[in-house]
Amino acid sequence: MNTIEKIIKENSLGLDIKKGRFGIEKESLRVNENGELALTNHPKFFGDKIKNPYITVDFSESQIEMITPTESSVEKAYDFLRNIHEIVATNLKDEYLWSQSVPPILPSEELIPLGKFPQNKELEKYREKLALKYGRKKQLLSGIHFNFSFDDEFLKELYELSKEKTSFKEFKNNIYLKISRNYFKYGWMIIYLLGASPVIHETYLQKCIDKMKKFTEDTYYFEDLVSFRNGSCGYRNEKDFFVNYESVDKYVESLERLIEKESISSAKEYYSPIRLKTKNPKEILLELKNSGIEYLEFRSIDLNPFSEIGIEKTDLEFLHLFILFLFLKDDEPFEEKDYFRYLKNQEILANKGNSDEFRLICCEDKNVSPKEYSIVILEEIERHLKAIGAFTNKDEKVLQYQKNKVLSNRLYSDLVLKEVKQKGFVKFHIDKAKEFLNEMKKTPYTLKGFEDLELSTQILLKAAIKNGVKFEILDRDENFIVLEKDKKVEYVKQATKTSLDSYVTMLIMENKVVTKKVLEKENIIVPQGKDYFNIEEAKSDYRKYGAGIVIKPKSTNFGLGITIFKEEFSKEDYEKALEIAFKEDNSILIERFIKGKEYRIFVMGDEVVGILHRVPANVKGDGERSIKELVEEKNLDPLRGVGYKTPLEKIRLEDPEKLFLKGQGLTIEYIPKKDEVVYLRENSNISTGGDSLDYTDDILDAYKKIAIKASKAVGAKICGVDMMIEDIKNPNPIDNYAIIELNFNPAIHIHCYPYKGKNRNLGEKILKALGYIEE
Amino acid sequence: MNTIEKIIKENSLGLDIKKGRFGIEKESLRVNENGELALTNHPKFFGDKIKNPYITVDFSESQIEMITPTESSVEKAYDFLRNIHEIVATNLKDEYLWSQSVPPILPSEELIPLGKFPQNKELEKYREKLALKYGRKKQLLSGIHFNFSFDDEFLKELYELSKEKTSFKEFKNNIYLKISRNYFKYGWMIIYLLGASPVIHETYLQKCIDKMKKFTEDTYYFEDLVSFRNGSCGYRNEKDFFVNYESVDKYVESLERLIEKESISSAKEYYSPIRLKTKNPKEILLELKNSGIEYLEFRSIDLNPFSEIGIEKTDLEFLHLFILFLFLKDDEPFEEKDYFRYLKNQEILANKGNSDEFRLICCEDKNVSPKEYSIVILEEIERHLKAIGAFTNKDEKVLQYQKNKVLSNRLYSDLVLKEVKQKGFVKFHIDKAKEFLNEMKKTPYTLKGFEDLELSTQILLKAAIKNGVKFEILDRDENFIVLEKDKKVEYVKQATKTSLDSYVTMLIMENKVVTKKVLEKENIIVPQGKDYFNIEEAKSDYRKYGAGIVIKPKSTNFGLGITIFKEEFSKEDYEKALEIAFKEDNSILIERFIKGKEYRIFVMGDEVVGILHRVPANVKGDGERSIKELVEEKNLDPLRGVGYKTPLEKIRLEDPEKLFLKGQGLTIEYIPKKDEVVYLRENSNISTGGDSLDYTDDILDAYKKIAIKASKAVGAKICGVDMMIEDIKNPNPIDNYAIIELNFNPAIHIHCYPYKGKNRNLGEKILKALGYIEE
Repeated sequence: MNTIEKIIKENSLGLDIKKGRFGIEKESLRVNENGELALTNHPKFFGDKIKNPYITVDFSESQIEMITPTESSVEKAYDFLRNIHEIVATNLKDEYLWSQSVPPILPSEELIPLGKFPQNKELEKYREKLALKYGRKKQLLSGIHFNFSFDDEFLKELYELSKEKTSFKEFKNNIYLKISRNYFKYGWMIIYLLGASPVIHETYLQKCIDKMKKFTEDTYYFEDLVSFRNGSCGYRNEKDFFVNYESVDKYVESLERLIEKESISSAKEYYSPIRLKTKNPKEILLELKNSGIEYLEFRSIDLNPFSEIGIEKTDLEFLHLFILFLFLKDDEPFEEKDYFRYLKNQEILANKGNSDEFRLICCEDKNVSPKEYSIVILEEIERHLKAIGAFTNKDEKVLQYQKNKVLSNRLYSDLVLKEVKQKGFVKFHIDKAKEFLNEMKKTPYTLKGFEDLELSTQILLKAAIKNGVKFEILDRDENFIVLEKDKKVEYVKQATKTSLDSYVTMLIMENKVVTKKVLEKENIIVPQGKDYFNIEEAKSDYRKYGAGIVIKPKSTNFGLGITIFKEEFSKEDYEKALEIAFKEDNSILIERFIKGKEYRIFVMGDEVVGILHRVPANVKGDGERSIKELVEEKNLDPLRGVGYKTPLEKIRLEDPEKLFLKGQGLTIEYIPKKDEVVYLRENSNISTGGDSLDYTDDILDAYKKIAIKASKAVGAKICGVDMMIEDIKNPNPIDNYAIIELNFNPAIHIHCYPYKGKNRNLGEKILKALGYIEE
Repeated sequence: MNTIEKIIKENSLGLDIKKGRFGIEKESLRVNENGELALTNHPKFFGDKIKNPYITVDFSESQIEMITPTESSVEKAYDFLRNIHEIVATNLKDEYLWSQSVPPILPSEELIPLGKFPQNKELEKYREKLALKYGRKKQLLSGIHFNFSFDDEFLKELYELSKEKTSFKEFKNNIYLKISRNYFKYGWMIIYLLGASPVIHETYLQKCIDKMKKFTEDTYYFEDLVSFRNGSCGYRNEKDFFVNYESVDKYVESLERLIEKESISSAKEYYSPIRLKTKNPKEILLELKNSGIEYLEFRSIDLNPFSEIGIEKTDLEFLHLFILFLFLKDDEPFEEKDYFRYLKNQEILANKGNSDEFRLICCEDKNVSPKEYSIVILEEIERHLKAIGAFTNKDEKVLQYQKNKVLSNRLYSDLVLKEVKQKGFVKFHIDKAKEFLNEMKKTPYTLKGFEDLELSTQILLKAAIKNGVKFEILDRDENFIVLEKDKKVEYVKQATKTSLDSYVTMLIMENKVVTKKVLEKENIIVPQGKDYFNIEEAKSDYRKYGAGIVIKPKSTNFGLGITIFKEEFSKEDYEKALEIAFKEDNSILIERFIKGKEYRIFVMGDEVVGILHRVPANVKGDGERSIKELVEEKNLDPLRGVGYKTPLEKIRLEDPEKLFLKGQGLTIEYIPKKDEVVYLRENSNISTGGDSLDYTDDILDAYKKIAIKASKAVGAKICGVDMMIEDIKNPNPIDNYAIIELNFNPAIHIHCYPYKGKNRNLGEKILKALGYIEE
């Protein structure tokens, strides 16, 4: 056990060392169905590519870059990347994300589009320079960068406990420098374990093709190639330069010298397996000197075409443990010759590490194979973690997964090669992209890692990511978030509670009596009626009421105390009903009973953005299958789930449904005739399997105008208007509608994922209303 | 029983006939302490006199006119008038409201200021014309107008039941015309029973004085004068004209002819005891013909100097019963000669009705005295009400009150005369005005008829009346009101929930975790701490916390689950406290324990409008009295009440207080030394007798700025900032304060009626913030 391990162990910092901040950046090329590089522009619906922090383009206009925010765990970063990937993939039109580090079928060099930044000519110029220097094709090599830093509190504690005489900044720098040096030495293992680009398409750079062997009809390879991208013809500088990792000052000095000599044009052109990064990305060399290293960027990770989003979560988790190992592992001298040796080691491993004869040149035992040495290091990682009391069951699984790869000869590079051989380069990759896309399309309403939030909030956040609006969850239980873009900050609770509506607007809507009074002032029809504060007054009005009234307590939401007289009624029954209602509240309402069907009209500002009608759980016969079978089939719809985590709920066949069928003289074994609709519940709630039907395009403008007027009457910008309409075909609303309620927190998901109808994209409408998306 | 009575009786409309709409208008002259007419301008703080619907001026700038809205009961109209009167009386500076129909000491004619309407020259011209025609002094005669109409639903029902062939409009007109004709005939009784102007000051019109006898040094009278205002030298046209009350058309025609002949300049110059009124007051004659009579205005009511606000509620209630009698009483022929006879009858009764020899010339029995005939009619009223099943105990009392006046010779005119004789004209009236004013000053925080509302809302409504902002209570239980002035409509709940704040602003303030996050982003000091969603994470942070922390569930308001560690604590105790907190909620907060005293800083927009500090119930010794006696004395303060209907609560001397004293080795019999402060409770709540102390001028700007910044951080326009300050004299806030909570519904009454300090007039500040009062 070394000193650091002792301190960590003795101070029970085993849990703290595992805390940290994690971020992922991933490049993916857009391709068409034939596996050809897409030559289209970056889609407009992802917003301004300079301002979108999640979805932008890299070197080429066709090279989408996905960037997660900094997260507090590997899992969260992974989930977020999956979300971005899903949003990008499912929104592309007739294009796919190429899930392979080496490019798809490429056109000739000059046809590869560079990233277009009409508002930032410097970015365009930089790309032109790179294109000239390295060739456009080489710059299309894509991969994953993993950003990591320790929890700062942990580092501070460690600093205090270690009693070092340096400053905290220096202490922290030294930790990250040590990890970097060790990554030069041991980083080959990441290429070995995660490398997945063992073959390239014939349209790639001719000078590379020329050095390689033909693999299939349209592909070339080196035998035993692990990662083309990390290999000698990969994404690297024209020549390996020495950069000193002894201290930040020396590191900066090395780079400054390279820039001076015009070997590279700026720090970011130094294509090393690892990068020292600062909080503020501008003037990075100056920042490094002033503020020190903020985090490390690990850059040797290939895209994994077997993985839904190009990387497995377990591989990222392994990377995290690997970094901890680099930190815990004692340091050794690291001179210029070591630097070059380690780089060379990585390069040759990438080129031919898959051969049984291959031997590493990095490390203590010069004759060791990567296979053998990987197992040694995997065990060493375990030992280090155990020494500090931080080895968990999960860690064991993570390490075991890598061991299995090695021991069962199932390295990604192996597997890719086999698949390419079997299916062909393009077909294999495109099939995978399509397969993953279809999987992702099944649950378009959820946001990974945020499934505990309401669907409406998940949908809003998805829209935020798509449009490049940054967000933070302030209170998960309350679905309270904050959005930010271009310094415009908006707080939002439950997707529709925003700064757009005033407090009193919500209070009006919350209070049925007040809502009615306000609407009546605007001559909007509400269930005619009256509120009573004492029973005598109500009793004395008996004569006034004919058939068709509802007597209800002012503020009950559970149906308690409500009596409906559809027919004529006696004075005695009337008074009894009053007593029942007054038992629940000290004021009651007597309203006219309204005929017709209920529609939820979602008004946003001056616009009706969605109309929904709900019908009770039901099945439609085909003349062959029983109710039971029809329900089973209907429940297969991925929109239907259990426990409100999906836009619709599965239809149940329990006592209430059976009883309701019995009332119609039916059982679940009954076989409905073709097109016969059988209802299974009286109530139309979604929660009991009801269907939501989109009527946005079916309701006449006259009714929409009334809904907008009602919303404006209470001053609402976001309002769910519940309107009864007797006949939706009647162009004259008078006597044909009544507004029964205004809702200040209308759900948006029901309008986005209805049982039948269109996605009304209310998440984006809300962002638009908040001013984040321009028309 | 006549036909109407039968219909009412048989259809149980006895309760409905009593429903109606009631309004009062009252003129009162402003006078100085010497009883001289005030020559000052109408006070600016009552807002623009043209736009204030409650408080304006009549003929003279010194003649305040108070107008109630139309209310649904006599009591409500009375209460509202009392409120207006109180607001006017208590806001006047060194002036009083002259509670007598005949004027106070008047300057010479030309010095009497006419109502000033610089923006409406027509109104000024009309006054100049009246001044020339009648003399300014005569126009100063003041009185009360009572507006009445039946409940329209009652009239409609009656119309249907009566099966008359006329239109409803005509039916309604006929009812009001009948009442009017009967009022000509029987209206003498109102003058007789309510007349209270039996004497005038010598500075009144010389031509009137010349006809009268000297009464006291500075007053004149007719012997047996009942109401100077209604008498021959009173407020009447130069000559009695005939106006036909047979139909609306004929009525309109009569007036049009008078206007044509230039006997009067417009309908409103027709000074009759009763007026037919329309919904829309413009173009009244045209309106009468088009839309018919909307209500009746009864105009013969004198101001009653014995009454707090110039009229007794029971007299108004009598007037209501009297009107019902006029309606129920069968009609008789009413020709021109009758019209003049009835008018004459009223005039002579006003002049000399107080004489035993006086006989009425109005009615059936030509030899009857007003005394005898009053009793007859009072009994007749009772009979009519009984006939329709509408006579209540209260009605009996109301009629009995009038009978007593007559039978015990205690007519107001008698009583005034006696008082004037004894105390002198000016002294009697001024003393009364002062007496009533002092009474009103005792409960400046309540609004009559609205005592069920929260004090904050009552204060806001008072400010609304004062500033001429119309209001309506939409939901009493919820203190939900709507304000309107110049078509600007604002809904307000609980005084501070308004359209000024956005919904999400309130939601931020409601959520302590989110509030802290938002404030921290702005570098505002909040109790340092952290929220935890699982106990393990919280446990692992034990090392981080030293002495002085509070562990609490995220959302409990009853102190449940809270542990405070002021000193060092063990890991065991820490974990126990976590368990206790997690029992109450699924997330908890650990915060630093804050030293200092708590101040409620009320921020409105960019301004701190009030700062309050509360101290526990206490008494300050005088070296003589016991704690018990000191408490009794302190409880005499009218600000202290029981049950939250007052700004402060009475200090109790019950078990908790006795126990608390015992803890200090004291009993309630202990006599504190001079200036010794003894506390009776640990907690500082107002509800347990705590004192509220105004610190608005004592807190340094640095802290106010922080409060404003905090309010702005959450986007609030109205915000109660709860700030702990360790030393309010320390000019450097850093390390000296922390904001512990932001409140979105801060009470305003505590800043208006503190135990010690100034009224910060927050009702008016809110109106200003809402845009109803200009700076």
